[in-house]
Amino acid sequence: MLAEIITIGDELLIGQVIDTNSAFIAKQLNKIGVSVYQITSVQDDREHILKALKDAETHVDVVILTGGLGPTKDDITKKTLAEYFNDNLVRNEGVLKNIETIWATHVRGNLLQVNKDQALVPSKSKVLMNVLGTAPGMWMEKGDKVFISLPGVPHEMQALVEEEVIPKIKGKYNCPFILHKTLLVYGLGESALAERIEAWEDALPSFIRLAYLPSLGKMRLRLSAKGFDEINLRALVDAEIAKVIPLIKDEFFGLEDEEGSVEVVIAKKLAKLGKTLAIAESCTGGKIAEQFTSHPGASIYFKGGVVTYSTQSKINILGIAKDLVEQHSVVSKEVVEAMAKNALGLFQSDFAVATTGNAGPSKGDSDAEIGTVYIAIATETEVYSQKFILGNQRVKVIDKAVNKALEMLLKEIFKN
Amino acid sequence: MLAEIITIGDELLIGQVIDTNSAFIAKQLNKIGVSVYQITSVQDDREHILKALKDAETHVDVVILTGGLGPTKDDITKKTLAEYFNDNLVRNEGVLKNIETIWATHVRGNLLQVNKDQALVPSKSKVLMNVLGTAPGMWMEKGDKVFISLPGVPHEMQALVEEEVIPKIKGKYNCPFILHKTLLVYGLGESALAERIEAWEDALPSFIRLAYLPSLGKMRLRLSAKGFDEINLRALVDAEIAKVIPLIKDEFFGLEDEEGSVEVVIAKKLAKLGKTLAIAESCTGGKIAEQFTSHPGASIYFKGGVVTYSTQSKINILGIAKDLVEQHSVVSKEVVEAMAKNALGLFQSDFAVATTGNAGPSKGDSDAEIGTVYIAIATETEVYSQKFILGNQRVKVIDKAVNKALEMLLKEIFKN
Repeated sequence: MLAEIITIGDELLIGQVIDTNSAFIAKQLNKIGVSVYQITSVQDDREHILKALKDAETHVDVVILTGGLGPTKDDITKKTLAEYFNDNLVRNEGVLKNIETIWATHVRGNLLQVNKDQALVPSKSKVLMNVLGTAPGMWMEKGDKVFISLPGVPHEMQALVEEEVIPKIKGKYNCPFILHKTLLVYGLGESALAERIEAWEDALPSFIRLAYLPSLGKMRLRLSAKGFDEINLRALVDAEIAKVIPLIKDEFFGLEDEEGSVEVVIAKKLAKLGKTLAIAESCTGGKIAEQFTSHPGASIYFKGGVVTYSTQSKINILGIAKDLVEQHSVVSKEVVEAMAKNALGLFQSDFAVATTGNAGPSKGDSDAEIGTVYIAIATETEVYSQKFILGNQRVKVIDKAVNKALEMLLKEIFKN
Repeated sequence: MLAEIITIGDELLIGQVIDTNSAFIAKQLNKIGVSVYQITSVQDDREHILKALKDAETHVDVVILTGGLGPTKDDITKKTLAEYFNDNLVRNEGVLKNIETIWATHVRGNLLQVNKDQALVPSKSKVLMNVLGTAPGMWMEKGDKVFISLPGVPHEMQALVEEEVIPKIKGKYNCPFILHKTLLVYGLGESALAERIEAWEDALPSFIRLAYLPSLGKMRLRLSAKGFDEINLRALVDAEIAKVIPLIKDEFFGLEDEEGSVEVVIAKKLAKLGKTLAIAESCTGGKIAEQFTSHPGASIYFKGGVVTYSTQSKINILGIAKDLVEQHSVVSKEVVEAMAKNALGLFQSDFAVATTGNAGPSKGDSDAEIGTVYIAIATETEVYSQKFILGNQRVKVIDKAVNKALEMLLKEIFKN
């Protein structure tokens, strides 16, 4: 079972919007054993859409289109779909009613003709009702192939995928099971890791694929397997994982959650230990806190954080001594350790992590070189820190500092 | 001038990684007048890569590949490229030296054969030296078409695009100029906006394209134009913007920065006014602070923030009266307004924004319905708040709350 995702919209092709829809759809399809053969982003252009449809039809079973269904003039997906299927657009009364309901509930002003026209769908399509918006999803079949058109607005698309598309695909096809397991590894480069596990990798059964996923100082190792016998597949993959863990034991920090990442591994461990966390951020500007709070259940272990961006706020809110700042500079081992220690006290947490640094492009309150970041960990019994030099590009300095902070925290918490 | 971006790697096709590389490359190409015709994500698979190369060659002038250049066994891009160009791989001494330098400086342990093999490149390619990593970029020509292969690690790819790819493309081709201007609009739906500006839109010259970009409560309107006379093009686009602004005056909040977004518009206005901002977040968990601090220059206007996630931290750090919480609940108008007001005092800022709510999936410290969020703005003279009901999906509740907070802040700051 293969699928192609076609995203329609010039905003992706000029780089104004990052395509998060495709990753969402791919993840959902994978869970029911449908492999994504290709993701294709095309222009809002009749000929280009027709070409993409034709190309997809020759390679895959399921084609999912997103975007280009808005009421305005730049959206031509629906007309083009009707043309591709040699079909015409007809008004769907259910969709019109949905549009009228949304209008009455959420929108000020009159229902316009362009909105009423959103109730036009190809006559051969089944409507996937979009209760969150005015653009309907559409399901079309051609032989044993399925074409699904969805709105590009992420939350509308997501609801339709979860509630309509996935159940319908499962109903229509006998889907295999696809399993991914990801091992979180720190401290080993891609090639050093590959050398360590070479013999194991060479002996992997052919239905298990291995991938190395390096990312700014962390490394993930992903095993993917596919088959019709879920229980057997899980057992075989787990057996391979049990073999590889001893080979990377010193650098292995757990399996990533199917939906999760480093912070989820940390969160689960904290919850298990019944311990709590506080965060004091300067150069990372709230991003560490945001990583944790974006996942459910954060209130169990996350006491809170401060973003003490200005030196004055480090003094006033975290109670850093003014002398300490003057003596050592605001970007220093002494200040970051005081930040972590005081955050621990302020929030009455068991662990605290703190960052201070200069992400650039200008030097701000400190004379530290751009890219210099200090990160500290405080626990009930100790405080320690590390200095990092993380380049000179602001967003990367911040992202690397977040990753380094998560790594230090992970190592500290896994001592327990 | 057309380009296609081909990203190689199964991690994109299973939805484990979101493709941010393509948006970066597309943006850079657009700046020098190269339009991206298509973005294609393909599997780490010889046949699929060959098919994508062939397809791209028939449609575009410039093909940029990213990914699949790592030292490990799952990366086959380089071999496949050599095959496509009917070429063989040869050792490049410059690349080998670069690998050895990186090894000596950053890596523990011996240089392995797999790493040395990263110095193998197709004999007909020009090397684009990647000083940040061991996988070189490669530039290959076939007739008047160019094929560029880049590593998938974002910061390595980005440096090569900026320092090698863009200058080389500009040197080889006579590139037109592409201009995008984006208007930030709040409070009007897509169709209501379209109706208001219909006559203007119909009269737009054909070389200017218009797109509506709706996103969780905000709306952007983008004009794109292309031509060889940059000065003239800018004048014509500016003239159209001058015509449309009066039509949407009450809902128009400025032009987005070429690289920026709502928070950049707010940041610029704050800097211009010489005013400062503080943030007190509960349910948004640091994400508002992170939006501002991800952009350079935040230290000019951003005093800092607190992420008072637990009720106790709202009391201890923000000084919210325990009685107030007990009387009104932690998710209430009274508490959010006290949070904003106290953040203003704590950070000695001119403006403060605060959030408290229940993002779900469980109810946490409050009995408010999931999706209930209060957002408050405090200034020197007043404090006010709004209540929002934002659905029941955690990440969306958070994102919508961030957007709503930015909208309220934008409206407040633009009063000045």
